[in-house]
Amino acid sequence: MKENPIKNPKLPHQKYCSDCSGVIKLVIPEGDTRKRAVCVSCGTIFYENPKIVAGCLLTWKDKILLCRRANEPRSGFWTLPAGFMENNETVEEGALRETMEEAGAKSNNIKLFLMCNLPHISQVYMMYYGNLNGGIYEAGIESSEVKLFTKEEIPWGDLAFTVIEKTIKLYYKDLEKGNINIHFDTIIKK
Amino acid sequence: MKENPIKNPKLPHQKYCSDCSGVIKLVIPEGDTRKRAVCVSCGTIFYENPKIVAGCLLTWKDKILLCRRANEPRSGFWTLPAGFMENNETVEEGALRETMEEAGAKSNNIKLFLMCNLPHISQVYMMYYGNLNGGIYEAGIESSEVKLFTKEEIPWGDLAFTVIEKTIKLYYKDLEKGNINIHFDTIIKK
Repeated sequence: MKENPIKNPKLPHQKYCSDCSGVIKLVIPEGDTRKRAVCVSCGTIFYENPKIVAGCLLTWKDKILLCRRANEPRSGFWTLPAGFMENNETVEEGALRETMEEAGAKSNNIKLFLMCNLPHISQVYMMYYGNLNGGIYEAGIESSEVKLFTKEEIPWGDLAFTVIEKTIKLYYKDLEKGNINIHFDTIIKK
Repeated sequence: MKENPIKNPKLPHQKYCSDCSGVIKLVIPEGDTRKRAVCVSCGTIFYENPKIVAGCLLTWKDKILLCRRANEPRSGFWTLPAGFMENNETVEEGALRETMEEAGAKSNNIKLFLMCNLPHISQVYMMYYGNLNGGIYEAGIESSEVKLFTKEEIPWGDLAFTVIEKTIKLYYKDLEKGNINIHFDTIIKK
């Protein structure tokens, strides 16, 4: 899917009620502890919650599949196929769908590898790893290029996001130890 | 936090644009594959994505801490403390916050125990387990009662949600095997 533009979660970026078009104010509803977007006309409370980003680190022989981003943010930089989980799917289905959409790639054996909190942008990354089926891939419309990289070839300086760099580094660290594990992490940015 | 009323994710429950108060239509935006709520006036696309519910199974000696729900849905039924993850927190922080809010309880050693997809309501449950600090608990405003239960005392017929029953059963299964593991599951409901 297209990226949701990330807005400052502390600002009242909702101006009008989506139910009655009344004016929205930021107030703490009764029995709540946080400011919410509340309609002054009909009283509807609009909650905002973190989003899950699901993706895959797929390997083929000794190589990892990376996509070059065709869209902002970070257009031109390399990433693992990943994107916002959609309604009515599982996290795993979301990871596989994004991998097909962005990299034309499939896997039959993905497992959760890294769950990483990004609280400053209210996202939780769920990165899976697995084998790339048949070594087959193709750039989707959100990628300008999709390619397999050995460890030495990884464009470390041109990776799109810290969480992607972290995923790849953790994978190689586990590989050295001879055991791919599940990891939990948080990236703190002010 | 208060429960978000669950609306049918297939229906266009957004009528007006929250940016300009224009009329919303359900259309597939260019380059997208799914129908989205799009403003016919300003073109803003409103994405809806799954929510994370975070909670804890805390134990004290041979007992599990359960809360009796004071609010709908399932008022009067028993549950593990859990609720919607908030912006700008980690999943673990969300699980601990909900546990404090609903059960007045703390833990210093929670670990992810069950990640369970509920695609029919676009939720992902992240249930942690750990030890209840000092055996201390107290009903929060969303609970009419909070109590410790041995396995024999668990009110199996009066549990609030399938995912809660699943969490508790998996815990006892692991306990019998002598090893608490991480689990991944999906509950399919039509």
